Amino acid sequence: MKIARKKFLVLFGPNILREVQKDTVGAETYDSMILHIKSYASNMNVCCDVFQSNWEGEIIDKIHQSAVLYDGVVIDIGALTHYSYAIRDAIHSVRIPFVEAHMENLFALEDFRNKSVIASVCAGQIGGLGAYSYLLALEALRHIK
Amino acid sequence: MKIARKKFLVLFGPNILREVQKDTVGAETYDSMILHIKSYASNMNVCCDVFQSNWEGEIIDKIHQSAVLYDGVVIDIGALTHYSYAIRDAIHSVRIPFVEAHMENLFALEDFRNKSVIASVCAGQIGGLGAYSYLLALEALRHIK
Amino acid sequence: MKIARKKFLVLFGPNILREVQKDTVGAETYDSMILHIKSYASNMNVCCDVFQSNWEGEIIDKIHQSAVLYDGVVIDIGALTHYSYAIRDAIHSVRIPFVEAHMENLFALEDFRNKSVIASVCAGQIGGLGAYSYLLALEALRHIK
Amino acid sequence: MKIARKKFLVLFGPNILREVQKDTVGAETYDSMILHIKSYASNMNVCCDVFQSNWEGEIIDKIHQSAVLYDGVVIDIGALTHYSYAIRDAIHSVRIPFVEAHMENLFALEDFRNKSVIASVCAGQIGGLGAYSYLLALEALRHIK
Amino acid sequence: MKIARKKFLVLFGPNILREVQKDTVGAETYDSMILHIKSYASNMNVCCDVFQSNWEGEIIDKIHQSAVLYDGVVIDIGALTHYSYAIRDAIHSVRIPFVEAHMENLFALEDFRNKSVIASVCAGQIGGLGAYSYLLALEALRHIK
Amino acid sequence: MKIARKKFLVLFGPNILREVQKDTVGAETYDSMILHIKSYASNMNVCCDVFQSNWEGEIIDKIHQSAVLYDGVVIDIGALTHYSYAIRDAIHSVRIPFVEAHMENLFALEDFRNKSVIASVCAGQIGGLGAYSYLLALEALRHIK
Amino acid sequence: MKIARKKFLVLFGPNILREVQKDTVGAETYDSMILHIKSYASNMNVCCDVFQSNWEGEIIDKIHQSAVLYDGVVIDIGALTHYSYAIRDAIHSVRIPFVEAHMENLFALEDFRNKSVIASVCAGQIGGLGAYSYLLALEALRHIK
Amino acid sequence: MKIARKKFLVLFGPNILREVQKDTVGAETYDSMILHIKSYASNMNVCCDVFQSNWEGEIIDKIHQSAVLYDGVVIDIGALTHYSYAIRDAIHSVRIPFVEAHMENLFALEDFRNKSVIASVCAGQIGGLGAYSYLLALEALRHIK
Amino acid sequence: MKIARKKFLVLFGPNILREVQKDTVGAETYDSMILHIKSYASNMNVCCDVFQSNWEGEIIDKIHQSAVLYDGVVIDIGALTHYSYAIRDAIHSVRIPFVEAHMENLFALEDFRNKSVIASVCAGQIGGLGAYSYLLALEALRHIK
Amino acid sequence: MKIARKKFLVLFGPNILREVQKDTVGAETYDSMILHIKSYASNMNVCCDVFQSNWEGEIIDKIHQSAVLYDGVVIDIGALTHYSYAIRDAIHSVRIPFVEAHMENLFALEDFRNKSVIASVCAGQIGGLGAYSYLLALEALRHIK
Amino acid sequence: MKIARKKFLVLFGPNILREVQKDTVGAETYDSMILHIKSYASNMNVCCDVFQSNWEGEIIDKIHQSAVLYDGVVIDIGALTHYSYAIRDAIHSVRIPFVEAHMENLFALEDFRNKSVIASVCAGQIGGLGAYSYLLALEALRHIK
Amino acid sequence: MKIARKKFLVLFGPNILREVQKDTVGAETYDSMILHIKSYASNMNVCCDVFQSNWEGEIIDKIHQSAVLYDGVVIDIGALTHYSYAIRDAIHSVRIPFVEAHMENLFALEDFRNKSVIASVCAGQIGGLGAYSYLLALEALRHIK
Repeated sequence: MKIARKKFLVLFGPNILREVQKDTVGAETYDSMILHIKSYASNMNVCCDVFQSNWEGEIIDKIHQSAVLYDGVVIDIGALTHYSYAIRDAIHSVRIPFVEAHMENLFALEDFRNKSVIASVCAGQIGGLGAYSYLLALEALRHIK
Repeated sequence: MKIARKKFLVLFGPNILREVQKDTVGAETYDSMILHIKSYASNMNVCCDVFQSNWEGEIIDKIHQSAVLYDGVVIDIGALTHYSYAIRDAIHSVRIPFVEAHMENLFALEDFRNKSVIASVCAGQIGGLGAYSYLLALEALRHIK
Repeated sequence: MKIARKKFLVLFGPNILREVQKDTVGAETYDSMILHIKSYASNMNVCCDVFQSNWEGEIIDKIHQSAVLYDGVVIDIGALTHYSYAIRDAIHSVRIPFVEAHMENLFALEDFRNKSVIASVCAGQIGGLGAYSYLLALEALRHIK
Repeated sequence: MKIARKKFLVLFGPNILREVQKDTVGAETYDSMILHIKSYASNMNVCCDVFQSNWEGEIIDKIHQSAVLYDGVVIDIGALTHYSYAIRDAIHSVRIPFVEAHMENLFALEDFRNKSVIASVCAGQIGGLGAYSYLLALEALRHIK
Repeated sequence: MKIARKKFLVLFGPNILREVQKDTVGAETYDSMILHIKSYASNMNVCCDVFQSNWEGEIIDKIHQSAVLYDGVVIDIGALTHYSYAIRDAIHSVRIPFVEAHMENLFALEDFRNKSVIASVCAGQIGGLGAYSYLLALEALRHIK
Repeated sequence: MKIARKKFLVLFGPNILREVQKDTVGAETYDSMILHIKSYASNMNVCCDVFQSNWEGEIIDKIHQSAVLYDGVVIDIGALTHYSYAIRDAIHSVRIPFVEAHMENLFALEDFRNKSVIASVCAGQIGGLGAYSYLLALEALRHIK
Repeated sequence: MKIARKKFLVLFGPNILREVQKDTVGAETYDSMILHIKSYASNMNVCCDVFQSNWEGEIIDKIHQSAVLYDGVVIDIGALTHYSYAIRDAIHSVRIPFVEAHMENLFALEDFRNKSVIASVCAGQIGGLGAYSYLLALEALRHIK
Repeated sequence: MKIARKKFLVLFGPNILREVQKDTVGAETYDSMILHIKSYASNMNVCCDVFQSNWEGEIIDKIHQSAVLYDGVVIDIGALTHYSYAIRDAIHSVRIPFVEAHMENLFALEDFRNKSVIASVCAGQIGGLGAYSYLLALEALRHIK
Repeated sequence: MKIARKKFLVLFGPNILREVQKDTVGAETYDSMILHIKSYASNMNVCCDVFQSNWEGEIIDKIHQSAVLYDGVVIDIGALTHYSYAIRDAIHSVRIPFVEAHMENLFALEDFRNKSVIASVCAGQIGGLGAYSYLLALEALRHIK
Repeated sequence: MKIARKKFLVLFGPNILREVQKDTVGAETYDSMILHIKSYASNMNVCCDVFQSNWEGEIIDKIHQSAVLYDGVVIDIGALTHYSYAIRDAIHSVRIPFVEAHMENLFALEDFRNKSVIASVCAGQIGGLGAYSYLLALEALRHIK
Repeated sequence: MKIARKKFLVLFGPNILREVQKDTVGAETYDSMILHIKSYASNMNVCCDVFQSNWEGEIIDKIHQSAVLYDGVVIDIGALTHYSYAIRDAIHSVRIPFVEAHMENLFALEDFRNKSVIASVCAGQIGGLGAYSYLLALEALRHIK
Repeated sequence: MKIARKKFLVLFGPNILREVQKDTVGAETYDSMILHIKSYASNMNVCCDVFQSNWEGEIIDKIHQSAVLYDGVVIDIGALTHYSYAIRDAIHSVRIPFVEAHMENLFALEDFRNKSVIASVCAGQIGGLGAYSYLLALEALRHIK
């Protein structure tokens, strides 16, 4: 049925934009990371949208919409990872696969970062590899089913 | 003083829409549940508005507004139930009664669902009876005072 | 098969009698609450027995007997709610639905009252609405299948 | 108003009978302890009944009845001390003072004995002095009000 | 001194009767299990009484009486296993050996079933082998001393 | 380098508006508190904006913007204080100093109010002094660096 | 051997003096309580010294000295009760009996007051009976051995 | 299908050898216990091997091999019982039944001995009966299916 | 009544002296901080005494005396903050306001520093602003009532 | 400097062999997975050894040796993941990067599987993608530095 | 610079004196232990003072003074070990090395003795070797730097 | 009886070899530490063997053998210290004294390093003094008995 190219969403939560900037050299950094993700996806021959929001509600809305627009989602919702059961339920309510990805190794950070409330409803997790985590997560999505 | 019909709000939080759909048969389901709630209220001779949002902030705003627009609120804020102390404070800040309702029996679900941070500021709780929980909650609201 | 009127049991545990008396005006209060419950049930066109005991063992016996005598049970076992796993197992062992009801909002009381060991084996919970909780619980029972 | 002699109840819970026997010399021991308590009360010029039961429900019933029959209760409910919130509520529901007494020092025993769920609803506690704890508890009762 | 046949008690707590029935085929099941236990004991050449009660107090009374009537007790007190410190003290107060037995493997069930408050005062534990657990427990009793 | 007047933001989270109103006399109260804060700032010879939102996402956006618009922020995010790690990360991502302020003494309130997830990324905390807490926080901001 | 009158010490810790004053009518109150204790002891035909200190070290010194000066000690060390393991060890190091006494019922107060680190090394505990607790504690001391 | 004699393994973990020696009289003790187990098995008409190792890895290897060599395993892995999730997974990975046995009553020992991480994947548990526990475990194995 | 200048006490606990020295340049540092505090108070037109002690008992004595000598107290008791319930009770026993101040942000330090046992009995808290915390605390004291 | 092909180790812990077999179709499955991993590595133009052991000690030895033999390690030590701090220290003691990989999503399994004691010393984690997790982990290794 | 003999302090906290006496034979015991320590130090060719106090404040003062008087401190503060964060801070504030020593093995005693709040600021720990622990601690001090 | 030289074993667990290397300068370091230990022992006039293994099972075997080969053991089992109850039982099963030693101060490291499961069965502990800890431990062993 699905002969069209697969379509993935990379969904970023609060502070991702700034965190990238802090670690690197300038305002264009976040943009260049997005470009990198998109060109990688293009090489994989999949369509890839990127969406970022600091608003939990907007992320939930986007997840609901993704159910009919995408074949899978790479998700990094920043610190919402640690407490947003509402996003967990949103992921759980849609049928496409989600792969959780983090630039940093959550387990090498503060205690409160050791817990992901969305992990149990995601197909897989990838962490600790910087922006490369997102690229591997795209590979994982493509591999699923 | 209050000879006009009482006016209640049924306030839904994140994912309620989708959860209804998952459990049932089609996209019209959520709408039909709303219709059911409204016709039930109509039979009770009370006005009843329904509002749904995936946004914690919008829910808080709505609660503040409800203080002057409604005589009581039936509330089911989905997974926000388990951590949104901000909504708890919003409920606490208005003087009209709130009745917490859930379609499912929270105590028969995952551990993190066993805790409601808004329970202590609601007049009552009703759970586990499917969409019928909302109808009984309307009865409860009418009964209070 | 069931064209006869449904038959419900309202089952009270320890101290319910005295708690009603404390909150109100006199020795006849508990009796009048029972009368109220029974006349409400009568208006619902269901038979309704009320049974109270301070003895955990007697409550378990009654639950076992209810399996063949009643179509559903409204249950408020007072402080046994917080630790009687034996009553939990009794409820679990019979096939008719139970609805847990409490006059008070357990979540606005002491910490040890926040936990119900029978909640996960009851069909639903209703709390915080005074004696009216029992009436709504009857409605809930009637509604269940 | 109360010129008649005060009337106290000494209320024992499960295993008290046997525990006394274990520590001492024979079957008459429990009886002799009762005699000692009664003669001590007599010397204090108060009436004193003693009641023992291994049944939580019977103890609750007795507490309810004590509200009109006695001016105060010395209570040692054995291991029920550690979990019977139902007895706690029974004590709380009557208006006469209760003094909790234990032959042993609960805090020098196993961990689970360190917690009394009835302590917060008793007027006072006396422990660790053997059967003499009960005599001092009678003194305490007489002293209250 | 003891040339007479040994005499054992199999002591069942709340809901055992119904649990057996649930797992099997009819009202005669519990009775047939009892017959099985008694005939097995008979083959072992020991006398064996069976007693079942849903009442904690009655169980405690029975344990006290067992001190002079029996040479050992097989005990399965159902959910009271998890909180009845009063039964624990009763067992501790008599000098004959107790062997705790359970049809199910407590450790493969819900968390609250993982804890036995009577385990530390029993000579041994046997679990997870269905009704056969009771037979092995009789063997264990015979073996002790 | 900085000869222009310093510019501070006072950033309020959910329910602040209503909480002020509850404690005092009327709808103008919150406005008058804002006026008070602004005139106090004016006397300190600093510019001062005030912003309030019930939306976590909007607060995060505002914090990001504050990095280039202000020299420091006084922050009271109400109940979000207790769980919004996303706001914590936002504060952490900007380089200007934040001083956390609360009208009430968090440590004299409910248990869940004893924990501030943003405290460790703020330069200082001031609490318990009513609206005066905000004024002292402005003093603190001016003092830093 | 001991035909001389017994000699007891009543040892008070931090803030006892002020707490007495708060509950009552004036600066002479603490003194009158001391007089009451001493006259009660005199009636019991025992010598009784009273010592109060806000200093943990001084209390430890006093306990060491009491080993040779007194036949027993009534002790109420105020809030040190909840954490002073050093005083616990001091009590443990001397051979005379100690009876812990408190004017208030610790178990009806804040959580941190529910724990006594000295309880396990005292012969007995008496609490909740106001200043009368100290008098009963003297009785208890006289009774021991 | 299985008309050949059943074949069981008794699998001992670290320190079993020495623990037997400590409790008894000499170096031959462990050997005589093995002989006892084997002759008991012989009387049951089953083949029985005994294997002991102090090495977790060797125990896991043995469990894997047991899947094709034995019809069931009696297992006592000593202190590994309390933390070796790797052995737990090994047991879980083979299809033959395991019965956990312990000479001592784990629940009457130190706290860390109260937890068995393999219990939930074993068919049954037998404990507290000395070396006789192993014999009953053989009976249990034979009884299973 | 009080037309005289207000009189405040700044009360320091253990190690404050040395901590100041560690962070700065020399032995005169603590003294210069004291001078700074006193001159600041003088500018505020209030009298201000400073007292430092490493002795919990001496601090309690001083708090008792402060009730009649001062109109308010700024308090920083160093590590006693985390466990001295005795000082907590002393503060609670006097009627003048206390403001808790710390040079450092307790919440950015070790876990055991996150808890202040005196916070709930102080009017307010100020932390993280170095020695300036003490000056703001004086402002806070002046502002109270 | 490193123009030779990179050399990676895929290091498996206890039960991996059997777990693969359970989930799939036959004894050749584990072997075919190894072949798959090796051919994938070959396509990546890296050398790849695979090593499996059920022995914690052998795994530690292998990790030490890997320091000089390999450029990176993909590691899945099965249930040792949850408690082997010794393996954690071994990883920490060598300078080459480790990527932790799991076939299953640990966070969707039993509670004890939610914790990885080696996570904080690995460069990254990949989980939940079946055997594909190992392939992505090889990609991750190649990407690092 | 330091050609003079090194100078060490052995600093004892509450109850040390009595604990020594309890374990041994008479009042001279503590003194003889001191003599032993001093002669051992003399043989090591170091000066050694011994100081004992039951007063936390005095111990803190002594630690502050030790900074300029001694080259290192052997410290055993008895039960203050378990809660005196104030002494911890005092040790942390001076630059000379501290070695914590205990006559007993803290880990073989009550639970509350398993925790030393000063351990993390001491250079080393020595325990369980009786008075010999102090001698080894002197050796350790001499060895450091 | 024992006029021959005493014979001690220094027993090292996982990663000790590499940890020494990390902290120092080269591959010969571990060897030179061993030489140092042996020459120190030689100066003490005791025989001293050193054994290192990364295998828990091998360590347990060695401990069993040590019972007849050595007069005491210095033990540092690295991270196994924190969870190997099997080694704990091995130590407990032999009669010669063990002294636990660590190069580092466990209490100044990560939380999981604060707990030694073998401490309660060792005669003493020495930590934080680098390789010198092992030398002092030898002294301690010689001193015992």
